[in-house]
Amino acid sequence: MRKQTKISNAVIRRLPRYRRYLNELRKKGVDKISSNEFSHLTGYTASQIRQDLNNFGGFGQQGYGYSVEGLYHEISAILGLDRGYKMVMVGAGHLGQAIVSHTYYYKTGFEVTGIFEVNPNLIGTRINGVEVMNYENIVEFVEAEGIDIGVICTTKDAAQEVADKLCFAGVKGLWNFAPVDIETPSHVAVENVHITDSLHSLAYHMNRK
Amino acid sequence: MRKQTKISNAVIRRLPRYRRYLNELRKKGVDKISSNEFSHLTGYTASQIRQDLNNFGGFGQQGYGYSVEGLYHEISAILGLDRGYKMVMVGAGHLGQAIVSHTYYYKTGFEVTGIFEVNPNLIGTRINGVEVMNYENIVEFVEAEGIDIGVICTTKDAAQEVADKLCFAGVKGLWNFAPVDIETPSHVAVENVHITDSLHSLAYHMNRK
Repeated sequence: MRKQTKISNAVIRRLPRYRRYLNELRKKGVDKISSNEFSHLTGYTASQIRQDLNNFGGFGQQGYGYSVEGLYHEISAILGLDRGYKMVMVGAGHLGQAIVSHTYYYKTGFEVTGIFEVNPNLIGTRINGVEVMNYENIVEFVEAEGIDIGVICTTKDAAQEVADKLCFAGVKGLWNFAPVDIETPSHVAVENVHITDSLHSLAYHMNRK
Repeated sequence: MRKQTKISNAVIRRLPRYRRYLNELRKKGVDKISSNEFSHLTGYTASQIRQDLNNFGGFGQQGYGYSVEGLYHEISAILGLDRGYKMVMVGAGHLGQAIVSHTYYYKTGFEVTGIFEVNPNLIGTRINGVEVMNYENIVEFVEAEGIDIGVICTTKDAAQEVADKLCFAGVKGLWNFAPVDIETPSHVAVENVHITDSLHSLAYHMNRK
């Protein structure tokens, strides 16, 4: 039974982490886990974990713990990972290539089906079997292929314009790696990834050691 | 006046984001900002912002707001960004190259001074002027150069072994991009970056639009 209340963004950010640990437990053949054991593994308090999972109706049984397989699939369904997504990559530089390779090798359920570039030296090449195409043709491709997500690995200056074009073409989400917060119409979700934020948290913790 | 109480990790994760917005305001020549205006900009509630900044002793003046320049420098100091850091990169694949280029072009205060590889085809090449060296020599280099941070862009399987070697050599922090949570001795800080976590949050929000 899934509650349909508004879940805070902080909870949503913890779910992928819970899911990763559950996946590792599944691979090791672990059937069930208590919130205390799960706390020890993930670094979140047992009370935090119980509270987070209660947002979605619980799943645990008193004195038994959580079913690893059940909780993994339930969290996957909550996140919308029980289906696949088609993505286009914009920008075939090193970061774009790294992300295309990552999604290819780790079979994440998010498939890059087209890569777009303005650099004529890259257009026509292939990355993990996927063709690098002329950015001019991106709208037609997104419409024809029913692309769900646009991944932006362009420069900071080009990112918002690329985002606008992808939204116009009909994507439902943007995963942005350009170092700027891009804006989207209210019907398009966006994750602005700032990799240096984690470096700054690291600096803080280094100075407290 | 900086309080020396234990700050929660959630607060520490918001500080780099606050700092980014303050930097944008500085560049636009904005002198001061109210917590309400800052809330509108960052997406956090004004109460959350005031509460976070109170952890460090406040900084705001009633009826005046926050000094953009002052708050920017104070948050920088809290995070430890008022000094520079030397880093080594392990793994010169696409992701490694992307991160080296990013730190080079955006002058982040975190300088990559050495890149290490096991692939003989890459050893001896240069990335943004930095030499790619044989991984066998990493311990001597880290010791001799007084390296602060090791960046891990290897495969999942190699990551923990590389981390152990870097800790042995004396780094104070690890910034890990391999898709596994690496472990460190208690005196070494670590940030395990899982880029697909943000993709999973994106999927959640797409399905709620």
